Amino acid sequence: MALQRKDLLGLKGVTAEEIKEILDTAAQLKPILSTGSKKTPHLAGRSIVTLFYENSTRTRMSFELASKYMSAAAANISASASSVAKGETLIDTGRTLDSMGTDVIIIRHPMGGAPHLLARHVKSSVVNAGDGMNEHPTQALLDMFTMREKFGDLTGLKVAIVGDVLHSRVARSNIWGLKTMGAQVVLAAPSTLMPVELERTGVQVTNCVEDAVREADVVMALRIQRERQKGGLLASVSEYNEFYAVNQLRLSMAKPGALVMHPGPMNRGVEINSDVAEGDQSVINQQVTNGVAVRMAVLYLLTRKNGRA
Amino acid sequence: MALQRKDLLGLKGVTAEEIKEILDTAAQLKPILSTGSKKTPHLAGRSIVTLFYENSTRTRMSFELASKYMSAAAANISASASSVAKGETLIDTGRTLDSMGTDVIIIRHPMGGAPHLLARHVKSSVVNAGDGMNEHPTQALLDMFTMREKFGDLTGLKVAIVGDVLHSRVARSNIWGLKTMGAQVVLAAPSTLMPVELERTGVQVTNCVEDAVREADVVMALRIQRERQKGGLLASVSEYNEFYAVNQLRLSMAKPGALVMHPGPMNRGVEINSDVAEGDQSVINQQVTNGVAVRMAVLYLLTRKNGRA
Amino acid sequence: MALQRKDLLGLKGVTAEEIKEILDTAAQLKPILSTGSKKTPHLAGRSIVTLFYENSTRTRMSFELASKYMSAAAANISASASSVAKGETLIDTGRTLDSMGTDVIIIRHPMGGAPHLLARHVKSSVVNAGDGMNEHPTQALLDMFTMREKFGDLTGLKVAIVGDVLHSRVARSNIWGLKTMGAQVVLAAPSTLMPVELERTGVQVTNCVEDAVREADVVMALRIQRERQKGGLLASVSEYNEFYAVNQLRLSMAKPGALVMHPGPMNRGVEINSDVAEGDQSVINQQVTNGVAVRMAVLYLLTRKNGRA
Repeated sequence: MALQRKDLLGLKGVTAEEIKEILDTAAQLKPILSTGSKKTPHLAGRSIVTLFYENSTRTRMSFELASKYMSAAAANISASASSVAKGETLIDTGRTLDSMGTDVIIIRHPMGGAPHLLARHVKSSVVNAGDGMNEHPTQALLDMFTMREKFGDLTGLKVAIVGDVLHSRVARSNIWGLKTMGAQVVLAAPSTLMPVELERTGVQVTNCVEDAVREADVVMALRIQRERQKGGLLASVSEYNEFYAVNQLRLSMAKPGALVMHPGPMNRGVEINSDVAEGDQSVINQQVTNGVAVRMAVLYLLTRKNGRA
Repeated sequence: MALQRKDLLGLKGVTAEEIKEILDTAAQLKPILSTGSKKTPHLAGRSIVTLFYENSTRTRMSFELASKYMSAAAANISASASSVAKGETLIDTGRTLDSMGTDVIIIRHPMGGAPHLLARHVKSSVVNAGDGMNEHPTQALLDMFTMREKFGDLTGLKVAIVGDVLHSRVARSNIWGLKTMGAQVVLAAPSTLMPVELERTGVQVTNCVEDAVREADVVMALRIQRERQKGGLLASVSEYNEFYAVNQLRLSMAKPGALVMHPGPMNRGVEINSDVAEGDQSVINQQVTNGVAVRMAVLYLLTRKNGRA
Repeated sequence: MALQRKDLLGLKGVTAEEIKEILDTAAQLKPILSTGSKKTPHLAGRSIVTLFYENSTRTRMSFELASKYMSAAAANISASASSVAKGETLIDTGRTLDSMGTDVIIIRHPMGGAPHLLARHVKSSVVNAGDGMNEHPTQALLDMFTMREKFGDLTGLKVAIVGDVLHSRVARSNIWGLKTMGAQVVLAAPSTLMPVELERTGVQVTNCVEDAVREADVVMALRIQRERQKGGLLASVSEYNEFYAVNQLRLSMAKPGALVMHPGPMNRGVEINSDVAEGDQSVINQQVTNGVAVRMAVLYLLTRKNGRA
């Protein structure tokens, strides 16, 4: 039992043994998803609440279905319908859920660090489902799971992460996780979308996508978060597509059989072209399936360790 | 096993044998609803997602409760809280749900044909819960189930459908289903709310409600969808009530014991008067109960045939 | 079996025997919440729907988790996503849920009396989760449960209820329940927030918080419902805090070990100061836990008596 944590707030500081235990557990659970009966007793008698201060279909649904497939009592709170509107603090909201017997609170919040604040004040386990521009650990875990399915081992893989690195919590979580697992990460972004502090993490950075994808084992396109763009960071969508999109030409520079990944939802024709997204090398749909398996594993492992009983 | 389809997108083209199997199955399942224990294992291990791009209480709840009564993992997505806002295409949303192991996607969409598009791109079964002005097949199935409960057989019944036929997917699905089952359909609407193409389907059309309801076995009032009315189609609500509402006088022209039906939610005093809606001949509440039974049947039959296992 | 009602609409008129049965049942059920397996079969095969015409996180979640912990089919309707927007009446919405086999409808509504209207027209049990400025009976039940846990018996307790009594359904339900159980209630509010008719109920009223809390066993702060304040009732938040907040000085006037209660969500620094809310005498988090237990008891007792079977 490598994973002894109460919470999963990010992959920074999570050990290789812990990541390996999560991925191994997910591999054991994944077959449930392709059977006719997606129902296990792993979370029977547990309660799991999603607390989302930002809209999300895929992440919320992934956690909700993972919870229900494992027989948990699952409930959702979205900020717009919550007592947030009445001015309650995040801590008070968390304590309320805590006092109702919630075993795991899954939080998405526009402010980096909000899940950490919450976790310090509740007995419930807290899973970060995305906090501002900070981390989104289960996304990186599903990405690593998908790479491991293909390559068996992450050590020595070259992973090119292309796009809006500045706003991407997916990129940050992948950087921490992949480095820990011995992979090589290369980030490519326009200089306006490349935060300077990331160079200090020891990953390679470049403004040239071609340099990043050359001989890569994995090419991961990041979503342009149009709703987050402040004026001036991005010249135009068509120009971005021309210089930074993952397309067939660029993919041809990667290793033969390199994986194409995207965290979704995709802006087709912006950061990724449809022919690549639909192509033989794309594992984008598998990522979604693996997301459910990884979240099942995380929920199971956290409640195994931190059952309130 | 007459029903071999992956999807239920409409009643156009659905055979009498298929409709009969759905109604027979619903009749077997209905008694569960009046017992103290509304819980069966029919959908245990299955996952059912409602994906509604239009608001709806009754249809969404009917499917949700049908799913839960049969032990499915049920989850809801409403457009306003979904990644629709982030610009994801319907197909990508569908594939995401598909990849999460969803067995049935129940979709309501303002554009006719959206469920068909979705169905072509996912392995999940797709049920149309209303698409634009096209079809709403489970509503027509529950209407036919309600008529069959009273009359035993649909053959030769005269069914008058009165009101805003133009915008009514309920009317269209009933036309296809009732014709297939051998009933006679007469539509009555103001000429501005009567689409010309429907005459070509072989049903009778008239602008005179009295002509339609005379000697009818069933009088079905359609909801005036005030939110869909464009200027000019409807002179005024009071004038509409005077000339087109189902009221006691008009009902007296139908056969003795003729059924009064309405898909809900009702605009009392507009397309139907309260005394008729509350009267002895009204089966409006039974329609709601039968809706749950019919949806249980549809979900069971589709997953029996198209289990992903 | 003291409780023979179909509905729980308020505590006015509920007998001491009925209240005692609810609190005793809640005491039996509460241990489930602190075990690793919050799952009982008490509501298996039952369906529970929350119908909320006002936003609420805590009350809706409390009922939803209570339902799920007891294996009910639980579903939620919020007004903004409902056919309310289509103009359906409350009665028609209720009948629709009724016809779908709903065993209990839990309603919150901005108009006092709405749950009573609904209850008269449906076979389902109706639980009032807050109606306008009228009642919120399960909140008062959980408050009494919390007092009973501490003091064993409610007879003769002095309970000071401090704050915006005018808008508070919590205060009204507590007045009825506590009087029935033999406790002494003293209300303290600014005169603009103290309704004259409450004096006629036989409780003491005062504009001086110090008078109210002196020698009290329980000091309950009411939420300032900022969203309900009409201009002029409240001079300013800081002035309110100075003259009416539950703070350490005022608490020191109560009996040693007096309980500090608040229905939540709290406006810290307005009607209650943080040091008091976090202090040793605060049972605010226990109130939340007890709320789930009390709601489990109410749902169980109502469906035991009024099962639709």
